Amino acid sequence: MTSPIVVFTTDFGLSDAYAGVMKGVALGINPNLRLIDLTHQILPQNVAQGSFLLGINHLFFPDDTIHVAVVDPGVGTDRRPVLLTTPCGTFVSPDNGLLSGVVDRYLESVPESTGPVALPSELSAVHLTNPDYWRHPVSHTFHGRDIFTPVAAHLSLGVAPRDMGEPIDHLYYLPLPQPVSQGDAITGQVIYQDVYGNLVTNIPADNLPDVELVDVRIKGRSIVGLSRTFNDSRHVGEDGLIALAGSHGYLEVALPNGSAADSLAGSEGEAVTVVYSSG
Amino acid sequence: MTSPIVVFTTDFGLSDAYAGVMKGVALGINPNLRLIDLTHQILPQNVAQGSFLLGINHLFFPDDTIHVAVVDPGVGTDRRPVLLTTPCGTFVSPDNGLLSGVVDRYLESVPESTGPVALPSELSAVHLTNPDYWRHPVSHTFHGRDIFTPVAAHLSLGVAPRDMGEPIDHLYYLPLPQPVSQGDAITGQVIYQDVYGNLVTNIPADNLPDVELVDVRIKGRSIVGLSRTFNDSRHVGEDGLIALAGSHGYLEVALPNGSAADSLAGSEGEAVTVVYSSG
Amino acid sequence: MTSPIVVFTTDFGLSDAYAGVMKGVALGINPNLRLIDLTHQILPQNVAQGSFLLGINHLFFPDDTIHVAVVDPGVGTDRRPVLLTTPCGTFVSPDNGLLSGVVDRYLESVPESTGPVALPSELSAVHLTNPDYWRHPVSHTFHGRDIFTPVAAHLSLGVAPRDMGEPIDHLYYLPLPQPVSQGDAITGQVIYQDVYGNLVTNIPADNLPDVELVDVRIKGRSIVGLSRTFNDSRHVGEDGLIALAGSHGYLEVALPNGSAADSLAGSEGEAVTVVYSSG
Repeated sequence: MTSPIVVFTTDFGLSDAYAGVMKGVALGINPNLRLIDLTHQILPQNVAQGSFLLGINHLFFPDDTIHVAVVDPGVGTDRRPVLLTTPCGTFVSPDNGLLSGVVDRYLESVPESTGPVALPSELSAVHLTNPDYWRHPVSHTFHGRDIFTPVAAHLSLGVAPRDMGEPIDHLYYLPLPQPVSQGDAITGQVIYQDVYGNLVTNIPADNLPDVELVDVRIKGRSIVGLSRTFNDSRHVGEDGLIALAGSHGYLEVALPNGSAADSLAGSEGEAVTVVYSSG
Repeated sequence: MTSPIVVFTTDFGLSDAYAGVMKGVALGINPNLRLIDLTHQILPQNVAQGSFLLGINHLFFPDDTIHVAVVDPGVGTDRRPVLLTTPCGTFVSPDNGLLSGVVDRYLESVPESTGPVALPSELSAVHLTNPDYWRHPVSHTFHGRDIFTPVAAHLSLGVAPRDMGEPIDHLYYLPLPQPVSQGDAITGQVIYQDVYGNLVTNIPADNLPDVELVDVRIKGRSIVGLSRTFNDSRHVGEDGLIALAGSHGYLEVALPNGSAADSLAGSEGEAVTVVYSSG
Repeated sequence: MTSPIVVFTTDFGLSDAYAGVMKGVALGINPNLRLIDLTHQILPQNVAQGSFLLGINHLFFPDDTIHVAVVDPGVGTDRRPVLLTTPCGTFVSPDNGLLSGVVDRYLESVPESTGPVALPSELSAVHLTNPDYWRHPVSHTFHGRDIFTPVAAHLSLGVAPRDMGEPIDHLYYLPLPQPVSQGDAITGQVIYQDVYGNLVTNIPADNLPDVELVDVRIKGRSIVGLSRTFNDSRHVGEDGLIALAGSHGYLEVALPNGSAADSLAGSEGEAVTVVYSSG
């Protein structure tokens, strides 16, 4: 029998013991758990970034993975603790939009505004209201330790979600900025900057039709053609920048052997336009 | 059969391989170990901070957890390597005060001065003198790898503490600053600053009698009333600061959506006074 | 039955989800894996540093450990993905010199120039060419996720290396700087700076004959005699510096209760000379 997998995605960082102590609580309930960190370094309280990274990366974990996702500026308020069951993983999290990137995958169209979104039929959710599966006393400021992790651990032991709370049919949705098409151009923005200074945009890479004739524009620089790798010298643009289909599945702007973020002084929110040549 | 749990608390950081290599040594002795990081980012050589965090957080781990705790500025000198058995975990560590926060829990009164403290009856300890359970050659500068981790791994295989060294009845104790009561006021200090800039004090939160009438003072600012969460707008004090019972079990000063540490330019050692209103 | 161990050594850092997502991929192939981080904080694209740390630290892991080592500035180019089998661990990695520190241990003499080196008889290697054991689609920029980790996971399930690619008898070798002996002196250099600011040299510590009469010189400072620990006051040199046999097995220069790196403004590449007194 294999051990159930619990994966943590938080903004707790690694300099405190917040990430570590959740593992103690989890193992106290189910000593057989396999505990994995996706990352604890979501930017503090940046629910949108957490949603983006979780939405992409949960797809690489086994379908029976239990995710504990905590970026929770509203901890202790009336924002609901929830459990979301999907075909690719179960998620225990505050209902503050952090699961939007996961829910997105199952929606026919992406909501444009913040607020409740009806769950499609593949998904089911529960508002976690049953304190029998929490750790007590419950701190008002650390539900990751006292609610989300205990619920995940009990779930791994076979407790049914419906025993942990009330079924709900909406979750709070936080839209990520969407790219806009206009004529031969699509305009998006930088949505994530990684540790290498690569600028990840919200423009899906698999829709770019002709890699030779694409013109990527960011902060006045032009990059004609997409590179295949960071070492591809055929399509180097202004200031040595390149554009390529990144491992997240989106268009990225990078500086080989350097940081595009530093070079451009650009970061999250920066506009990026892709112009398709008619040639 | 579940895997024994070994938890690491060190100041080794994560940029070197020091934390990782201890895990290799542990698995070489017992390949069934479950290895957890509480944190490797205790401030370098800050035994007091390690003692504080370990004292609070070990309580969240299962009772049969084996802790390897290494903040060890005296590595290689005559400070003793020790093993401490408690009702809530076994600890392998240098005898330099790092276990004071754990020992504290069992003392009737907290020693005021640094030095040996007699162990109460619930605790037992061993001076680790038997090199049969160490890795050889023993480096003079990395006992975490060569003594503490091998001892923990052998312990997980069932070796008795008494076979690893000589019983001792005292451990070296490093007192943490204690709050002082005077009339209607209690004065403590900031003892820990977390990654969000929350200032954790040494004033226990469960002794504060009336949350409405408390006046918390720090660096000339006054905060009247305790908040329940970081979003509680009823008791915002000067400069937007709030005070609340934190997840460590102590009074914290925080700045919602900001860093109290940055805002106050305050950190470890800063005096904090709580005045109870007679109203 | 114990779980197979997979150890990660990369320059991915921990602020993104790159390290975490590889674990999801690994567990999707073999849910029984035990996943350990040696470090994810090799300096970005610093193949030499990765080679040095992996060469030293893999020796502390069990012989049946599978290492995924990825510092890969040439990802997506024609540098080969390879698998190296040694008496102490199997390594899955780009063939860019990252395994030089491992291969070193088995060579009779260390090559002086960069380029292919013939493998000695204890070692065998495979060029990973069989896409059946990769994750698809293969990103051009993240072979850690899509090639190296899947290959390691399949290997842990018992797939033979020869089924994953073509046998090769050379690997790409990247020489680390070697110390030079001249008369009574040996001159090396700082090859690694750790988080404490200790300066690790490339001068093997076990060849230093007489600890009392050694004179270590760095940036104009002289340190006479080797210390045994960081607290050894007998051999403090100029500016409070000490020299000692470090836990990596090489001569280190340190500043007790401080950072030698900061104090000397010295780092990787700095010359260090050891002069043996004839006294």
